Amino acid sequence: MNERLENRIASAALDYVVDPPAGQDAVINFASPSELYGIFAESVPLPIEADQPPCDDDDLLRAVRAVIEHSVHTSHPRFINQNFAGPDPISVVGDWLGAALNTTGATFEAAPVFTLMESAVLNKLAAVAGYPLGPDSIELPPGLFAPGGSTGTLFALQLARHRHQPDIVRVGSNGDRLCLFVSDAGHYAAVKSAALLGIGMDAVIKVASDDEGAMAADALDAAISEARSGGRTPFAVIGTSGTTVTSAFDDLNALADICEREGLWFHVDGCYGGSALFSPAHRHHMAGVERSDSFVWNLHKMMGMTQQCTALLVKDPHQLAPCFATGANYIFQPDKQHGEFDSGDRTFQCARRIDSLKLWLAWKARGDQGFADRIDHAVRMADHTRERIAQSGGALVPLVEGDFTNAVFVWVPPSLRPFSGAGLSDADRAQLHRLPPLVKLRMQAEGTAMVGFQPIHGINSFRFLFMNTSVTTDDVDAMVDLIIAYAEDAWVELNPAG
Amino acid sequence: MNERLENRIASAALDYVVDPPAGQDAVINFASPSELYGIFAESVPLPIEADQPPCDDDDLLRAVRAVIEHSVHTSHPRFINQNFAGPDPISVVGDWLGAALNTTGATFEAAPVFTLMESAVLNKLAAVAGYPLGPDSIELPPGLFAPGGSTGTLFALQLARHRHQPDIVRVGSNGDRLCLFVSDAGHYAAVKSAALLGIGMDAVIKVASDDEGAMAADALDAAISEARSGGRTPFAVIGTSGTTVTSAFDDLNALADICEREGLWFHVDGCYGGSALFSPAHRHHMAGVERSDSFVWNLHKMMGMTQQCTALLVKDPHQLAPCFATGANYIFQPDKQHGEFDSGDRTFQCARRIDSLKLWLAWKARGDQGFADRIDHAVRMADHTRERIAQSGGALVPLVEGDFTNAVFVWVPPSLRPFSGAGLSDADRAQLHRLPPLVKLRMQAEGTAMVGFQPIHGINSFRFLFMNTSVTTDDVDAMVDLIIAYAEDAWVELNPAG
Repeated sequence: MNERLENRIASAALDYVVDPPAGQDAVINFASPSELYGIFAESVPLPIEADQPPCDDDDLLRAVRAVIEHSVHTSHPRFINQNFAGPDPISVVGDWLGAALNTTGATFEAAPVFTLMESAVLNKLAAVAGYPLGPDSIELPPGLFAPGGSTGTLFALQLARHRHQPDIVRVGSNGDRLCLFVSDAGHYAAVKSAALLGIGMDAVIKVASDDEGAMAADALDAAISEARSGGRTPFAVIGTSGTTVTSAFDDLNALADICEREGLWFHVDGCYGGSALFSPAHRHHMAGVERSDSFVWNLHKMMGMTQQCTALLVKDPHQLAPCFATGANYIFQPDKQHGEFDSGDRTFQCARRIDSLKLWLAWKARGDQGFADRIDHAVRMADHTRERIAQSGGALVPLVEGDFTNAVFVWVPPSLRPFSGAGLSDADRAQLHRLPPLVKLRMQAEGTAMVGFQPIHGINSFRFLFMNTSVTTDDVDAMVDLIIAYAEDAWVELNPAG
Repeated sequence: MNERLENRIASAALDYVVDPPAGQDAVINFASPSELYGIFAESVPLPIEADQPPCDDDDLLRAVRAVIEHSVHTSHPRFINQNFAGPDPISVVGDWLGAALNTTGATFEAAPVFTLMESAVLNKLAAVAGYPLGPDSIELPPGLFAPGGSTGTLFALQLARHRHQPDIVRVGSNGDRLCLFVSDAGHYAAVKSAALLGIGMDAVIKVASDDEGAMAADALDAAISEARSGGRTPFAVIGTSGTTVTSAFDDLNALADICEREGLWFHVDGCYGGSALFSPAHRHHMAGVERSDSFVWNLHKMMGMTQQCTALLVKDPHQLAPCFATGANYIFQPDKQHGEFDSGDRTFQCARRIDSLKLWLAWKARGDQGFADRIDHAVRMADHTRERIAQSGGALVPLVEGDFTNAVFVWVPPSLRPFSGAGLSDADRAQLHRLPPLVKLRMQAEGTAMVGFQPIHGINSFRFLFMNTSVTTDDVDAMVDLIIAYAEDAWVELNPAG
């Protein structure tokens, strides 16, 4: 007799976690949307029918296998596509246990253990960041979890605006033409947040970054002055720690100096790079974060937590309730026990998924050293990439130097070596720009690797981005070789005459 | 030799899912915060230490068992505490598989299968709601998933404001003193959203509801006129389908008539009650939802999906990108294949957890009939509660009649029967108000049940709230008997003289 369907699906999921695709397995068994419709039609069709009957267990299990087969294998050592990768298995099963116990993190009543675990990890994260801890930091931890980095930034900017205009929550904007500052290499969450807050995207002033992608502090100074003369009211600066493309770090102390002088809220977007704090060798990048008013940190990026695990740390957690509370008395009853631990009225969300358990478990299982090792491994892989680029004889050219986890580079055809961006003809520039998408198409079609690309100075560039712990220097070498081989082929295709 | 830790934790989680606490098992093995610190100190202490070493596997497994033992057992048939409960096991393992495959739902590239599944469930949900489907509804589905109902409401109100002022996203508020309307029994997400959007909580006009908790349409009419005369600019009305306390439904057709006449965005907060649409017997509550501009629907409430599974349906999905897009070219590259399926620039979030797989799997496994059965079962349990109240000889008095899933009532001591709210002395009112917290304390201490309470007209009232499929009429009877017995004891405690 067959097991119950839930056991069979759980088995398939667990097999995947303990023995994910690797080695000669494909990173992705790519299929187009129409191919996927066809594949699922053989077990359980993708569309939910007008009068959907219950499907057969065996068909459902075949569909589950198709889900696994045609999803991207983010744990595969050839997956370096984005700023997350396959998760720590302990995080996965911590996530699973939280889902099994299905509750919400809003109240101690509904989540007694998880309330204390969330407090524990927030207190430790704050300690790692050098944030002060108040005497009441167990009941009122120095921050909260948010459903993603963008939402964390949104909440931080609302806290910033609330400090600027304490009655904003009740009466709405007082008409000040607010503005905030972020590096032009910063994340688009700043812009999206400004739109949602009703401040407007134009109020996000993009401060020039230097060649490495870090905000130029003198440019920030100038931008603030210019905004003030133009009738704008600056209220916040976002420092970026680990930009999306080059993993550059703003000089947080320089930014903190300016914020203190100008009376501006200092928010640090450390969604990606905040985890450098775990490594004694690399935490210098984050120097000054302890001077920020708020700091958003995605543990689902470098730290291998499952999507999502976002901590928003705040310097003064007493500001949370005035900014977010409504005091709904059907859930935050004043007359129930231990209500002082309830986090739900200190944030925007009502029900919240349990995001703390997986982090708590992984931290307890790996220890501080295990967390540091993840960072050091990632930088080591990036360093190896940088060496390979340096030794490529001009075939690969870095667009930034970098000393963290990202290596961004172009492949240069022999006819254009030594590479000079300024000296390129428009035609060559256009052809170079077309290369990485073609290389990626082939990688996807063959399943040999998943590597990101994005335009820099108008030319699509490859990005090797490390936090996947399964990657070895052999994998790096193999992926570098693939890029060179596929790019050579693509260049010939693009330039049949030459 | 011991298995790997991840296997052992997964086993514990799976055992819990397939055989959750029930019968004589406690709903909660209650422990205070300080007791919990003590319990965990015996295996893995809750705080993360200053120099946290890796913990021993056996200790970690003991900690996992403590997590399970002291969490609230939301699948237990005596858990009717809030508007979610134990999940459908198929949803749990669907959630697990999504976590195992750890990716983000923002792009087809990173989530090929899940992008199509999300589209499939959104299309089906829209069909169930009677929303029209465009010819491009596969690539551009009629909505998106959001990380919770409050966030869904936030996004909907931004869409509403964007229609009112199309340049809001770029330039920010034009200074209109916007206002919106929701019933005074509606969810606080409206107020929290208004604060975050920079409109302000005062701009949320609470329209009187009738005795059952549904918005009075004539009161809405009057409130709109009054707001306009007061110099406010109405831009949206929120209809509530399934209020938190009494599960009341606004008359959506009456509200739609008003919104059409007044040119206002009509948003339906069906986070809780939207699922009535699945049941032919109860979908009449949602009549008129097809006339709304947006509709937020939490499948993690009545439908037993794990936290969280929130669909925001929108009548015109072409409005999403203009409202939310920033066109970040490192992730939404225009030159990659199948980018037209990317959902990431149609919402506020960047990385998104996979919330569609679990719903797709559960729907395929249960079929439309299975979904309808959940609703019908819940209402049957509430009907049984209403019968017990009616037959209680005046010991229990309903505060609303109701015909959906909630039964809200007070226990009345013999000396105050027949109950008259108006005729109560202040002293008796105060004593009655103190009863439910005491009853709840005892339930928690004994682990016999988890039942909610909240103040109504100044008196704490019990709320039986059904969507937990494990509840039987025997459980309802047992919980009604418990309330009566515990309330009698508590009344004696509170009134030692009489």
